[in-house]
Amino acid sequence: MLGAPAKERLLQILRILEGEEREFTSAELETLTGWPSHTIRKDISFLPKTEDDETVDTGRFSAGTSSGYAPRTLVPLIREALCLDRRRKFCVAGLGRLGSAYLNLDSAALGEFILAAGFDTNVNRVEILKSQAPLYPAHKMGEVIRRLDIEMALLCVPAETAQGAAEKLAAAGIRGILNFAPAIITVPPEITVRNVYVRDELLALSIKMT
Amino acid sequence: MLGAPAKERLLQILRILEGEEREFTSAELETLTGWPSHTIRKDISFLPKTEDDETVDTGRFSAGTSSGYAPRTLVPLIREALCLDRRRKFCVAGLGRLGSAYLNLDSAALGEFILAAGFDTNVNRVEILKSQAPLYPAHKMGEVIRRLDIEMALLCVPAETAQGAAEKLAAAGIRGILNFAPAIITVPPEITVRNVYVRDELLALSIKMT
Repeated sequence: MLGAPAKERLLQILRILEGEEREFTSAELETLTGWPSHTIRKDISFLPKTEDDETVDTGRFSAGTSSGYAPRTLVPLIREALCLDRRRKFCVAGLGRLGSAYLNLDSAALGEFILAAGFDTNVNRVEILKSQAPLYPAHKMGEVIRRLDIEMALLCVPAETAQGAAEKLAAAGIRGILNFAPAIITVPPEITVRNVYVRDELLALSIKMT
Repeated sequence: MLGAPAKERLLQILRILEGEEREFTSAELETLTGWPSHTIRKDISFLPKTEDDETVDTGRFSAGTSSGYAPRTLVPLIREALCLDRRRKFCVAGLGRLGSAYLNLDSAALGEFILAAGFDTNVNRVEILKSQAPLYPAHKMGEVIRRLDIEMALLCVPAETAQGAAEKLAAAGIRGILNFAPAIITVPPEITVRNVYVRDELLALSIKMT
């Protein structure tokens, strides 16, 4: 069982290795992530080994070796460990300016995620907006999310209605919410929330600026 | 001189302490951030001390003590160390669905950042859109960014035009770009880029979901 910090480190490593061909040493990964190389080696050594993978069986991934990690071998192991080895469906709740911007993203921009539905309380918007995925009035949320097995939602409603919309998503069985509304939302503990606040992004950019 | 990983840890700590009254021990901060408590104590011990701050002078912030950190004292020190103790101006480049969504955010949602201008190549949009900040046609970018001393930009143009728009922002003297366009942009090394890709946000949400 991986802890939350180990998962975040492995996700960072995954994002670095994806699309790369050459091997990376743990020292390089330390430079790129800021995590100590021994922590990185430990995280990787805890990954489940695949039976038919010679590279792994010969101990290349055991802690303490100085040889590099091959993206081709390591990326699928990390994806599996982080349960990213299946495609997940998400919906957009709130189709104003922000929400509607996410309706027609190129599928390459979404990676392993599938936009499965959009919802808005304004039936007019639902009928008029152009979208790759079907759009529904908000009162159909419960039925559609269950029928299509949608796991995640982008919450793009105004701050004033964010809590109410989050509760409807929770009641519909959503498991994770990306909260783009500039508001704090409270949901049952089994639902995971990640806030995407523009102030936080500006803060993170500021401290990187020299 | 703080390194990039130390800056990111301090920003995480700042976000936890902001708005709190009670003291936090380094052990609590370890639980909340995943960073070892000795690393957190070291980061905090390197903060510049303020002359008139008794709490600091008595060594409360020195590494190795087990007493808690008081947000009231520590937050301003971290803000100063991260150069977050002054308000910075940003602009929005590209006023389509996504960009225009950022024109009327409540100032509380922006914290210490000030929306100073918006730009779009479509003059019609510039004239029609409602905005808290003045909007300009894109060809005025260079002049306006310099005159208003705008340091950062939210890049909200479509993927196809992202590189061109980033180059214009770079030429205008912008220092940091939050890239919301689902595209990789290349800018001169003195300009800092932070990508805000919806796939990355969905990945980060996924690994937190149980």
